[in-house]
Amino acid sequence: MNTAIQSLPPRAVVLLSGGLDSTTVLADVIQCGYNVTALSFQYGQKHAHEVKQSQRIAKSMNVTDHCIVAIDLAEFGGSALTSDIPVPKNQHVDQIVADIPITYVPARNTIFLSYALGLAEVRSAHDIFIGVNALDYSGYPDCRPAYIEAFTELANLATRVGVEERKTTIHAPLINLTKSQIIKRGLELGVDYSLTTSCYDPTESHLSCGHCDACLLRLRGFEKNGLTDPIPYAERQ
Amino acid sequence: MNTAIQSLPPRAVVLLSGGLDSTTVLADVIQCGYNVTALSFQYGQKHAHEVKQSQRIAKSMNVTDHCIVAIDLAEFGGSALTSDIPVPKNQHVDQIVADIPITYVPARNTIFLSYALGLAEVRSAHDIFIGVNALDYSGYPDCRPAYIEAFTELANLATRVGVEERKTTIHAPLINLTKSQIIKRGLELGVDYSLTTSCYDPTESHLSCGHCDACLLRLRGFEKNGLTDPIPYAERQ
Repeated sequence: MNTAIQSLPPRAVVLLSGGLDSTTVLADVIQCGYNVTALSFQYGQKHAHEVKQSQRIAKSMNVTDHCIVAIDLAEFGGSALTSDIPVPKNQHVDQIVADIPITYVPARNTIFLSYALGLAEVRSAHDIFIGVNALDYSGYPDCRPAYIEAFTELANLATRVGVEERKTTIHAPLINLTKSQIIKRGLELGVDYSLTTSCYDPTESHLSCGHCDACLLRLRGFEKNGLTDPIPYAERQ
Repeated sequence: MNTAIQSLPPRAVVLLSGGLDSTTVLADVIQCGYNVTALSFQYGQKHAHEVKQSQRIAKSMNVTDHCIVAIDLAEFGGSALTSDIPVPKNQHVDQIVADIPITYVPARNTIFLSYALGLAEVRSAHDIFIGVNALDYSGYPDCRPAYIEAFTELANLATRVGVEERKTTIHAPLINLTKSQIIKRGLELGVDYSLTTSCYDPTESHLSCGHCDACLLRLRGFEKNGLTDPIPYAERQ
């Protein structure tokens, strides 16, 4: 009789926006051998088409457990990503990180991670992955290493898992990488960046404006790798 | 010319479930002179009628800024409060706090506080109040003092407010009170407990079953004050 005990792969919850960063994280987590639950949000964002892209990305990576949660962050307002406030355009790319911009959505990552924590508990996952980035990012407070550490601390006090002394970890593997390093890593992992989307202000005809902070940072990331971004931009059409 | 500068009352966000605890907190915060935004959740709970009660309570206390957020925590499952799992009945009241019960909703308070944090930021409020209680509670991990402290820590890293070094505080004024002390405090503040609801497992005809943990703790709280709970229970009808 074969009594070998097959160990199951560990479970992880991965926040997947449909953007370049979270898609790279997803590819990385899959390569590490995790059994993945992807989590995406339809939160009232102007660029809601990213959710469709997240579905395509999950499918392309054979992630069958993909939760899409509909919440309304537009209701509270306070951000150019969810309200009538215009998305800033054509800032100098080195100036983007200087201040907290109007595209910052109040408490968004905290809300997203809270849902991820609940889902992780239900799925018995002890690892949560988020693609935040503290270098080539948009100056958001909830993308900093100290923030991620504080959420890990909270996670281990907040849940049944914490009480049972089995630790939950919030992983932010891209936090100290530049956008070009992220792209390099993703290409090594075989990520198809043509499926991803980053623009904060898409229109029906032009899914990437080429002028908002997210487009500018992304374009520079490909450029620094000596590559052309595979997605179409408004100007190029 | 009268040049006196009138200082505006400070703003606070109060989580209001429609239950006994959060209603007592609301009365307390109003008495302290805060300009209150109340925040309630329709989250897929079996006892969703508590949201209607929260509206009556807010109205009775002249709170005009009352946000009701619809989210779906039933989607993730894992709790008797949001799924087909039966709500436990007739446990000995002193045994209720021994374990994390099946009525625990994964990451619920973390999700609620995250929304409160976003709303506080938009309303320029630096004080968030939650009626959690670590004594006569149901053994939930996210009702402990260390959890509240960790969330305060997180709040000050998560938001624009934190970056601007104006601190946000999560207040849990009931955390070390017994249910009977909470009721005593509420009665001193003039709270009308007939508007509140606590039952985890109401039916259309009986809004309070009298047998779930929440009913048992509430009934004992009134009894210890030598009082009769003003709300009707199934048995009494």
